[in-house]
Amino acid sequence: MSIVRIEREDKASRAEMVRREADEPRSKVVRFGKDKPLKLDAGVELSPYQIAYQTYGELNADRSNAILICHALTGDQHVHNVHPVTGKDGWWDSIVGPGLPIDTDRFFVICSNVLGGCMGTTGPASKNETTGEAYGLTFPVVTIRDMVRAQAALLDHLGIEQLLCVTGGSMGGMQVLQWAVTYPERIFSALPIASAARHSAQNIAFHEVGRQAVMADPDWRNGKYLAESTSPHRGLAVARMAAHITYLSDAALHRKFGRRLQDRELPTFGFDADFQVENYLRYQGSSFVERFDANSYLYITRAMDYFDLAGEHGDVLANAFRNLKARVCMVSFTSDWLFPTEEARQIVHALNAAGAPVSFAEIETDKGHDAFLLDEPELFAIVRGFLDSAAKKRGVKAAK
Amino acid sequence: MSIVRIEREDKASRAEMVRREADEPRSKVVRFGKDKPLKLDAGVELSPYQIAYQTYGELNADRSNAILICHALTGDQHVHNVHPVTGKDGWWDSIVGPGLPIDTDRFFVICSNVLGGCMGTTGPASKNETTGEAYGLTFPVVTIRDMVRAQAALLDHLGIEQLLCVTGGSMGGMQVLQWAVTYPERIFSALPIASAARHSAQNIAFHEVGRQAVMADPDWRNGKYLAESTSPHRGLAVARMAAHITYLSDAALHRKFGRRLQDRELPTFGFDADFQVENYLRYQGSSFVERFDANSYLYITRAMDYFDLAGEHGDVLANAFRNLKARVCMVSFTSDWLFPTEEARQIVHALNAAGAPVSFAEIETDKGHDAFLLDEPELFAIVRGFLDSAAKKRGVKAAK
Repeated sequence: MSIVRIEREDKASRAEMVRREADEPRSKVVRFGKDKPLKLDAGVELSPYQIAYQTYGELNADRSNAILICHALTGDQHVHNVHPVTGKDGWWDSIVGPGLPIDTDRFFVICSNVLGGCMGTTGPASKNETTGEAYGLTFPVVTIRDMVRAQAALLDHLGIEQLLCVTGGSMGGMQVLQWAVTYPERIFSALPIASAARHSAQNIAFHEVGRQAVMADPDWRNGKYLAESTSPHRGLAVARMAAHITYLSDAALHRKFGRRLQDRELPTFGFDADFQVENYLRYQGSSFVERFDANSYLYITRAMDYFDLAGEHGDVLANAFRNLKARVCMVSFTSDWLFPTEEARQIVHALNAAGAPVSFAEIETDKGHDAFLLDEPELFAIVRGFLDSAAKKRGVKAAK
Repeated sequence: MSIVRIEREDKASRAEMVRREADEPRSKVVRFGKDKPLKLDAGVELSPYQIAYQTYGELNADRSNAILICHALTGDQHVHNVHPVTGKDGWWDSIVGPGLPIDTDRFFVICSNVLGGCMGTTGPASKNETTGEAYGLTFPVVTIRDMVRAQAALLDHLGIEQLLCVTGGSMGGMQVLQWAVTYPERIFSALPIASAARHSAQNIAFHEVGRQAVMADPDWRNGKYLAESTSPHRGLAVARMAAHITYLSDAALHRKFGRRLQDRELPTFGFDADFQVENYLRYQGSSFVERFDANSYLYITRAMDYFDLAGEHGDVLANAFRNLKARVCMVSFTSDWLFPTEEARQIVHALNAAGAPVSFAEIETDKGHDAFLLDEPELFAIVRGFLDSAAKKRGVKAAK
């Protein structure tokens, strides 16, 4: 009846890989020394710190073809390459690549692991140089704005003054919106997908359940599991299972699984995974814990909970965007109940009120929130068209 | 950061009370001996077994004024009296009582703890007379139909041939529908509220998360926590928190809590319950574990998962109701996303197709699934009107 059915040996080696990745990532990495601290919203400075990132395609001569992709809660920088831990394809391979909507033959595509993450950018799983141990809960709580500040430092390092576009789905979309607020002059266009300008009470509630599931696991050890060589994988798997339900629509779950039984004709009258949907959820839980750090999950969900663009601007969202000149295309999915299309509409209204050039694509689909990661032809067409138009408007030339 | 903030001593005495209640309930109880086993869908017979129940009002001379209330997943028989463990008022005090819609001055109201429950009807927390230990996971998996069979045995014991009405919300509504299928001749009317004729893939998914949260708790001890004097309260609290989100609508959560902080002006940049909604959920988790048995939670969620009336009748729901003469009033709430109003509409269509006299009340509210437990004037009016009409039609006389 255990959730996690990974062989013990394999699990140990995967855990070791994840732990190593936090400090010595198998991707590009830039390290910022004590002379370049990162000022955080929590009121502290983080230094030294590092940002792990990937790039695809080539930067052109006038540095005008750069696109920054911001990843979601459990994503990472491995957008379009084999993942160093799981061996799986990049998480946005469907849309990023040569000839694809985010065309790596034309654009210089950057994606960095978020601050607080566990794939090489500094986070709770990283070694604190002062103590020689992983930060754990001594890592400062970060915000979406802090993540964006770190990305801006990366762009400075890469010598990119203004992005052609910043894009991303879910928490990635939150970062896109934060870019439009914090660095409006540094983006030529913005493409937030399946996102919101604040985390709702229901969103916070689901995250709190996930955090409590992790913290209820005795192997979490008050966040010191790395030092004590334990792993709160049971709690993290439960957190992932609960979250995963919110990524799919009721209709998608019904289409995928309905009430079909798993490899049996009749119910067993027991607590094994009788139904296919149970089996699927257990797999989602067990495969997630192989590649993710539990404390990172706490920190990143917390960053999302704190996100509230209007709240920081006198409860008037339009005020947040008043310096924005960039063109924005907001995308939502009709069956997304985690970030409902109504929230996207309010962002579009606010952008309109602020005088920013904005278009709104509400895509009719029953795939739910996860539609941004799936094979969604209408999304592909919109992304291709929007980037093409932005590139023309800016006069972007090919890299050579 | 612990979910459960109950004083150790208080917790222990509450746990002792719950444990005692499973065998020696402080309510009426009927015991069925080895000569009267209960045949279960799992293909086994349960004996001996007992049913704990409460009654309110008086049975009239021709035994025609009896109403059976079926409780929901975490409910019990204490509809309209102070709860013996929590000391709180009855869970349906808003609608059951003298002069209230389910009028105890006119009707004889019965509610029994479901089979598999932990408040005195036989379930996994009950002592198995053969071993002298609590059943735990050796208790057979039960179904909604098994629960209804036990209720029918109770009615036999009380000498009630036909109920004036059977009613209940959520899982209570499932039992109501099962009554209409299994014992159509024993009900004069039926009033299912906020319910469905089957558990959907999303419903099963949420239940599976709850079960995995319980089973991931090392103190669950493979179901033997009572014998080993531990308590999987952390896992059960997480299960309750996840479930509780599904009982409320997004709008209700927003109205109740929004993004308001708990007793503070500014976020703490930590993992305490910064937001009111977090505090509320933690309270829901911690108060639930004080009054409920973790294995009962596994068994009852499983019973709901297995519920599929159409599936048992050639996938044609109308076939399930073909012998029904009773009048039915189906009630749903527009903002209920756990048992969406669309599912209720399908039940109404099936009843119509089967030729049963049925009315449908879709109540416009933003309170979500839990609306059936709340102060909902339209629900009160409908229940009052429906029972009044049924009583007139049947010629029900007062008890004296």
